[in-house]
Amino acid sequence: NRFSTFVKSGGEAFVLGEASGFVKDGDKLCVVLGPHGPEWQENPYPFQCSIEDPTKQTKFKGMKSYIAYKLVPSHTGQQVHRRYKHFDWLYGRLVEKFPVISVPHLPEKQATGRFEEDFISKRRKGLAWWMDHMCSHPVLAQCDAFQHFLTCPSTDEKAWKQGKRKAEKDEMVGANFFLTISVPAGHPASLDLQEVESQVDGFKSFTKKMDESTIQLNQTVNEFARKQVTGFKKEYQKVGHSFKGLSQAFEMDQQAFSVGLNQAIAFTGEAYDAIGEFFADQPRQDLDPVMDLLALYQGHLANFPDIIHVQKGALTKVKESKRHVEEGKMEAQKADGIQDRCNIISFATLAEIHHFHKIRVRDFKSQMQHFLQQQILFFQKVTQKLEEALHKYDSV
Amino acid sequence: NRFSTFVKSGGEAFVLGEASGFVKDGDKLCVVLGPHGPEWQENPYPFQCSIEDPTKQTKFKGMKSYIAYKLVPSHTGQQVHRRYKHFDWLYGRLVEKFPVISVPHLPEKQATGRFEEDFISKRRKGLAWWMDHMCSHPVLAQCDAFQHFLTCPSTDEKAWKQGKRKAEKDEMVGANFFLTISVPAGHPASLDLQEVESQVDGFKSFTKKMDESTIQLNQTVNEFARKQVTGFKKEYQKVGHSFKGLSQAFEMDQQAFSVGLNQAIAFTGEAYDAIGEFFADQPRQDLDPVMDLLALYQGHLANFPDIIHVQKGALTKVKESKRHVEEGKMEAQKADGIQDRCNIISFATLAEIHHFHKIRVRDFKSQMQHFLQQQILFFQKVTQKLEEALHKYDSV
Repeated sequence: NRFSTFVKSGGEAFVLGEASGFVKDGDKLCVVLGPHGPEWQENPYPFQCSIEDPTKQTKFKGMKSYIAYKLVPSHTGQQVHRRYKHFDWLYGRLVEKFPVISVPHLPEKQATGRFEEDFISKRRKGLAWWMDHMCSHPVLAQCDAFQHFLTCPSTDEKAWKQGKRKAEKDEMVGANFFLTISVPAGHPASLDLQEVESQVDGFKSFTKKMDESTIQLNQTVNEFARKQVTGFKKEYQKVGHSFKGLSQAFEMDQQAFSVGLNQAIAFTGEAYDAIGEFFADQPRQDLDPVMDLLALYQGHLANFPDIIHVQKGALTKVKESKRHVEEGKMEAQKADGIQDRCNIISFATLAEIHHFHKIRVRDFKSQMQHFLQQQILFFQKVTQKLEEALHKYDSV
Repeated sequence: NRFSTFVKSGGEAFVLGEASGFVKDGDKLCVVLGPHGPEWQENPYPFQCSIEDPTKQTKFKGMKSYIAYKLVPSHTGQQVHRRYKHFDWLYGRLVEKFPVISVPHLPEKQATGRFEEDFISKRRKGLAWWMDHMCSHPVLAQCDAFQHFLTCPSTDEKAWKQGKRKAEKDEMVGANFFLTISVPAGHPASLDLQEVESQVDGFKSFTKKMDESTIQLNQTVNEFARKQVTGFKKEYQKVGHSFKGLSQAFEMDQQAFSVGLNQAIAFTGEAYDAIGEFFADQPRQDLDPVMDLLALYQGHLANFPDIIHVQKGALTKVKESKRHVEEGKMEAQKADGIQDRCNIISFATLAEIHHFHKIRVRDFKSQMQHFLQQQILFFQKVTQKLEEALHKYDSV
């Protein structure tokens, strides 16, 4: 199928030995053998990049408005301003260049309400998550287009266009990208293709199950947030309202021994009112970040079928070539070349799978911790409010 | 209106000087002037009475079953067993005897499910609340029929019947009851009837407002309890279920660096499941007692219109008698007698109103404290469960 991902990605051309290009030293990407199998060589100069202060800017004398975000990469410390369309351009380059790497999805486009505060704040958070995943990836973090995006001064229009053109003319994309991959040398480092197939199949099942469970979790969390903002808030505030009603009735008795109780019950009513507000405010603190994380991972999970497809295509070519050699239709040397190149794709795929698991464990650990910490703070705040109310009865 | 409460209660007969009977010293009820106005003289031998161990008993060789409650009055320390029908008999005597005293209502009768555990437990609690209000009331606590009920040995059938007959033949009921009331002597202690009228009117408005707000609170609390048992529980358990689903997906990756996270997420799922159960179990601890209290007070609030009616009837008679004297239709001496007897009813009514406020403040204070304490314990339990879950991530 000439329209399959295997063909379109350049995987087929590479496996068949049709890719050619000059690989500069700086373009080399190494897969190494770690304790858990193949992994991308770590970025020797790891960095992060903050995304803050989305501000509305104008050009063409105010005819056109847009939002610019302030980026400060830690390895340069120099702030640059970028618009969503710059992120989008970069994303396009990365997807084109890297056939077996899961490029994190950008937060979705939105036509209307682009200048509304909620939307901007949500997009900034989404871009920050995206940036975190970009910086965490040894290959993506170091690629030229990304570095250009992070470091080119926003005021130097010329340098920006130059870097853009260079990235767009990059020849080491698609099939040629695979030429840049170095795998551990020597025969023992060559992968058992059957073993690779079983690992990739296992990962395929994993992503399927993870995709189902994240969709389910996302729905539940979304509904839970909605319930807290509506039903939970309403129930606690109705209790607060009824206590206030009781205290208003009791206030008709203004004898000295009643007044303290009346005030304490009124305060209790206010406390339940406040607790209702706490419930409504809470999802922003704990459930929204969980949903942001799930959205990012749903993007990755949507990427992997194509990545797996490229690897499977390569494996199929190896099997075919072996059959062709047996049938005398192909020279053994050519088949060996195919197997070697499939080995490179397999190393890259397994490295990418490993990277996915590594950041998944890191991200879900820290997000679950954050979620539970926020939930604990919330219930402590509720408890504290109730304790305040309880103390009002001490002097009654 | 010969069917009015004023007439039926004996209030009219008493005011018109038609009641007569011999008041033994032991029957005397004193109203004294306290710091807040008239109040019942305190019971010099205050006591309480526990109601425990409802047990199924049979008679007629098992042909008839009933539930007997163990009562232990603190002033005798001797346990007696009583059935609901004994409470009901006593209640009837008290209502007949005391026209301006709010006899607490018994927990409602129920024809079906009499032997079901929930019903028995609920009735026991209702009877305990009733008993608390009986023992707290200076007049009710000391009355003969109640003392007979509390102290007559359950095994002495003869003594029980004797006491019962005596109570049923009591002549100091209705109109004659008022004869037993002593009010502070001397002219300064005589109440300003206009002032009394305004106080009673104020109390009437108070009870109306309190009745409305307790009905409202009862509905809210009832609904809140229902929501916690259904919706709240369901929402937290759905979150728990989704976390468990995620951990099951993650368990497909059994690499060393994943296992700890998988287990921590599974535990988090269980924690949310448990929190759902906490929500469902909670109303029994905090909302049910509030509803018990409200039910008891709704009974008192239903009693007061009649009590107020008797007092208003007496006041009307005083006004009438004054007019009759002016018109030469009545001797001044007779009118003075009417005014004196109205004064007695007013003292008793104000004492009863005072008693109501006193126990109301006491009961609502302690019940609000209990409610808040239980709510605090609940939210602390939730927090603790979440902290347990959070710690599972420490070693990930």
